[in-house]
Amino acid sequence: MGAMKHQDDLFAFLSIPGVSAEAEHAADCERVADFLVEKLTTLGFSATKHMTKIHPIVVAHSPKVEGAPTVLVYGHYDVMPVDPIAEWKSDPFKPEIRDGRIYARGASDDKGEIMCHVLGAQEIIEEDGKLPLNVIYLFEGEEERGSYSLHEFVQDPEVQKDLACDVIVVSDTGMAAPDIPSLSYGLKGLCCFELKVEGPSMDLHSGIFGGAVANPITTLCEMIASTHDADNHVTVEGFYDGVQEIADWERESWARVPGASDTELAALTGVPALRTETGYTGTECAYARPTLELNGISGGYEGEGSKTVIPTHAIAKMSCRLVPGQDPVDIMKKVEAHFRKVCPPSVRMTYTMQHAGDAYIVDPHSPFGKAAQQALEMTFGNPPVLVREGGSIPIIAEISKKLKKDALFLGLDLPDARIHSPNENMRVEIFEKGIEMAKNLLRLMAQVK
Amino acid sequence: MGAMKHQDDLFAFLSIPGVSAEAEHAADCERVADFLVEKLTTLGFSATKHMTKIHPIVVAHSPKVEGAPTVLVYGHYDVMPVDPIAEWKSDPFKPEIRDGRIYARGASDDKGEIMCHVLGAQEIIEEDGKLPLNVIYLFEGEEERGSYSLHEFVQDPEVQKDLACDVIVVSDTGMAAPDIPSLSYGLKGLCCFELKVEGPSMDLHSGIFGGAVANPITTLCEMIASTHDADNHVTVEGFYDGVQEIADWERESWARVPGASDTELAALTGVPALRTETGYTGTECAYARPTLELNGISGGYEGEGSKTVIPTHAIAKMSCRLVPGQDPVDIMKKVEAHFRKVCPPSVRMTYTMQHAGDAYIVDPHSPFGKAAQQALEMTFGNPPVLVREGGSIPIIAEISKKLKKDALFLGLDLPDARIHSPNENMRVEIFEKGIEMAKNLLRLMAQVK
Repeated sequence: MGAMKHQDDLFAFLSIPGVSAEAEHAADCERVADFLVEKLTTLGFSATKHMTKIHPIVVAHSPKVEGAPTVLVYGHYDVMPVDPIAEWKSDPFKPEIRDGRIYARGASDDKGEIMCHVLGAQEIIEEDGKLPLNVIYLFEGEEERGSYSLHEFVQDPEVQKDLACDVIVVSDTGMAAPDIPSLSYGLKGLCCFELKVEGPSMDLHSGIFGGAVANPITTLCEMIASTHDADNHVTVEGFYDGVQEIADWERESWARVPGASDTELAALTGVPALRTETGYTGTECAYARPTLELNGISGGYEGEGSKTVIPTHAIAKMSCRLVPGQDPVDIMKKVEAHFRKVCPPSVRMTYTMQHAGDAYIVDPHSPFGKAAQQALEMTFGNPPVLVREGGSIPIIAEISKKLKKDALFLGLDLPDARIHSPNENMRVEIFEKGIEMAKNLLRLMAQVK
Repeated sequence: MGAMKHQDDLFAFLSIPGVSAEAEHAADCERVADFLVEKLTTLGFSATKHMTKIHPIVVAHSPKVEGAPTVLVYGHYDVMPVDPIAEWKSDPFKPEIRDGRIYARGASDDKGEIMCHVLGAQEIIEEDGKLPLNVIYLFEGEEERGSYSLHEFVQDPEVQKDLACDVIVVSDTGMAAPDIPSLSYGLKGLCCFELKVEGPSMDLHSGIFGGAVANPITTLCEMIASTHDADNHVTVEGFYDGVQEIADWERESWARVPGASDTELAALTGVPALRTETGYTGTECAYARPTLELNGISGGYEGEGSKTVIPTHAIAKMSCRLVPGQDPVDIMKKVEAHFRKVCPPSVRMTYTMQHAGDAYIVDPHSPFGKAAQQALEMTFGNPPVLVREGGSIPIIAEISKKLKKDALFLGLDLPDARIHSPNENMRVEIFEKGIEMAKNLLRLMAQVK
């Protein structure tokens, strides 16, 4: 087999170890940004590297096409750390094709997907001499560490003017199966908080004081248990205020998502059975029902064997995934009020609010949404499943809010792409179809009036 | 102020660092045993050092007094580790008297108390030429690490014959106040166990799978919350089978214990309010009500900030303090049955039984009990409060069972003695009265028919 089309470009891009979270890779992050600026400049774009407090942001404008729509394509050039490095079958920064897959850190998330968009534009320029519409690329280098600089960047009215567009396109989400494309039109919101329950001022002997003093672990467990009823509804007062019911067309679309039945989700996750909110499938809960999850708990003796103490305190780390209609800060306050209500007088509680991000939803049947659906169907041979993301990408919600335009998610991460894990990969077929999809998308969106 | 009476003996004894849990102190433990053998031999006892797999056991018999009762005095010559050493104001193994207190590791627990008994016998011998009854000293070197060797030792019928006695006396428990002596006639039993709840086979993204998959932490909390009702009764079926109600004389005696009111217990432990079983005071719960306590819990992310995962599992370490009438193994099985009943099908549970020890109770109004009460009242000027221990000393229950004789606990550990902590101490006054108490006890018990 000869070299894959565009292999040199992709491999050069994947070879630069732009791990945003690791200080020793700061210069590499800048090198990735430089690579993009150079590549886009070669294609005739006006490309700029904006320096930030952390890693640069790349903004590139195609030559102006009067009267045509403007599409902003978001992506992130930074990648996750590679640990555990011993589990990689090949060097994460020496891309390699094996068995029809490109292996490298960032092969899918998100360098591979950025390259599909850039190379799609390149092929159109090569074929037609120019793009049929205005394209803005916005590539950041901090997505895997919280998008701090981009969040700052888009607060600037001048930047908002520079990024003014008609629609935002993102390829940084999942794809159901190689022949079943996915269009995501919603993201969950998120808020994180911590609950600490404090009892005695020192660890107590469980014999001398047991039965007299509230056990902070037991009390914390009781408080946590009070957050859900037997139907797995969250019992926090007002939690569901403003939450929209799932529409019939959504239920129908989600039932088509491959691998997303309750039986398949149980097999995928290794649980003996799902436990969903009564009246909803697992996928419906993940896409469109708000949740309150325990992410961590600790307290007392956690070592080998036993130590019969009543500990001074116990802590739980929690988060809510939210849906449109819920305000993350409002929800954190409601959760606090719930805990204050159920907290017994025998302990002290401390509640700490951490970060928060809004949920996000757009209409996938808008003119640009329809163009995206059509581009996916043309490329992959099947209409896309219309899904929502269970995950949260707060920076997209923020950009969309600032630019006042919809963001559409055309995902190319297959379930077996191993993003964030060792042996991350992208199928060669998906890379090639991704380029095709980007071409179809730009041509179809050019026709939106 | 001149040297305290018997200071040389006590200080020599306290100076040997017999920390039983630390391998580097094995030779020191043997040196402490040798010290006791030598001291008791000097007093005319027939003293033997029995070697074991861990640390020696010292057994000493006074010269036979025909027709008189035999008292077995139990004690432990080993001490707890000294960490955190930086918090000691003087070297834990260089005894020092400051402000009326003897500071050293073991000053109270249990070397100081052993010495009171030995020196009491010495003074009687000095005054009367001989003891008025038969005394057996049984001093072990592993109490602070589980009494493994002594447990083995007393299984031997020859040893049981050698230790045959009429009553067992122990000074290794608490004393209410310097002028309020305490006689304990009961110990709680104990059983320890662990509950693990397992869900997904890997940590899951709380957005992608949240709402579909049971959260192992939430589930564990719900299972734990199900173990107590609103009255703080344990809801495990059959948990209270065989539990005796507290007798009126016990309630009355316990109400006299200084510092044991609900208000004082709350102040002592630093909790905003007690949380007792409905219908019982804190002290009643600690002395005589069985409990189910959480000693430790862990699961998911316990680091800084947040990590939005649904973890694979969560673990709780638990123990029950039991009262006479409850069998520890039976209780562990009942608790397991409870958890199996409430465990939902969406997780897997593993329940592990750990160690167990029986509860223990005797009649403090027996003839030897009355002699003990009288010895305490003569020495300290007030009748003793009759109490039960919330703690568990399984080895005493075992010895008592094997020798078929009552054990009485004449405690000398004041609440401010800081046993197991830095700056452990014994008041000089208590040391001197402890010797007096031992003398009174032997003389009074000699008269029991």
